[in-house]
Amino acid sequence: MQGNLVVISGPSGVGKGTICRALMEKYNDLALSVSATTRKARAGETDGKEYFFYSLEQFEELIKQEAFLEWAKVFDNYYGTSRAYVKKVLAEGKDCILEIDVQGAMQVKKKCPEAIFIFLVPPSKEELARRITGRGTENEAEIQKRLKMAAQEMTYLKDYQYVVVNDQVEAATEKVRAIILAERCKLSRWLNCHGEDLF
Amino acid sequence: MQGNLVVISGPSGVGKGTICRALMEKYNDLALSVSATTRKARAGETDGKEYFFYSLEQFEELIKQEAFLEWAKVFDNYYGTSRAYVKKVLAEGKDCILEIDVQGAMQVKKKCPEAIFIFLVPPSKEELARRITGRGTENEAEIQKRLKMAAQEMTYLKDYQYVVVNDQVEAATEKVRAIILAERCKLSRWLNCHGEDLF
Repeated sequence: MQGNLVVISGPSGVGKGTICRALMEKYNDLALSVSATTRKARAGETDGKEYFFYSLEQFEELIKQEAFLEWAKVFDNYYGTSRAYVKKVLAEGKDCILEIDVQGAMQVKKKCPEAIFIFLVPPSKEELARRITGRGTENEAEIQKRLKMAAQEMTYLKDYQYVVVNDQVEAATEKVRAIILAERCKLSRWLNCHGEDLF
Repeated sequence: MQGNLVVISGPSGVGKGTICRALMEKYNDLALSVSATTRKARAGETDGKEYFFYSLEQFEELIKQEAFLEWAKVFDNYYGTSRAYVKKVLAEGKDCILEIDVQGAMQVKKKCPEAIFIFLVPPSKEELARRITGRGTENEAEIQKRLKMAAQEMTYLKDYQYVVVNDQVEAATEKVRAIILAERCKLSRWLNCHGEDLF
């Protein structure tokens, strides 16, 4: 049985990566999509594991071929989700998790409206600010920019099917898992596999 | 936060009661609806626990008052689900489980289209026949009648939102639980509680 495409998104700093890593550690019927990028591989990174690494020319050619479900240029580098890779994972019967920002999610929604769209939200505005500030890797101007961006990203909430509050990682992970299991029980999926006449 | 109404239904013999009992034993944020009936209380049965017991006149008066989400006459007795009882459970913030047959479920669907409709199916026609035959309480004619009815009831599958195969009680119970948790994360529910402007 074909897997489902699961988009996990939400504002900057909400903890998308943490939830996705927790899902991957716990459930082997899920696969995290490996993004394509033009940024250089760092020490220890392997092509096809952390990322699929491409040259600028290769990436732009793939964009032309509509090889990506979504892509974006961040500063000088491209990032994208390969349509072929996702297709391969789904054909293996695994659900494919995309951990992407709201812009990417909206691109996927246009191309795959049948995907499952989950929006992670922080328990409060204050807690999100704490998480963004607490990373300690950015200066004040950068923090203000990220906070403003997060507030803007929150407005996309209404374009998703499910909202999960990331108050505690384990509880939020279990809610996302429940959504994934429930979606496998949807009538449309049953009818696709079994037809209408079981008896 | 208001609870959800969860209709658990399926063909005769599929194991609705077993799944509902397993849910009740495991999760205290769920409540099983107590049916109203005109049948006499048996030894050990308490009014308001196994059933709400009514006289024929009382029950027919309640039907006139539209006090039931669904009701049916089975041989000489009425059975029904009290609208007020369900409302009370939901107001307490618990999800209210209705374990009902397909006819009852279709009545609830008309009155509460926002409820969650789950259809339990047997792993196969043969397995359902084994379960119906295996009860050992009915004669051959009765078994044939129940098998025919189950086949008829299976045709209602397409009127439900979710299909859960009851192959193993524990696995099926966990799927139903996942559906209940996922529905609590639905966007519409979030917007009802929080409005559109979190930030």
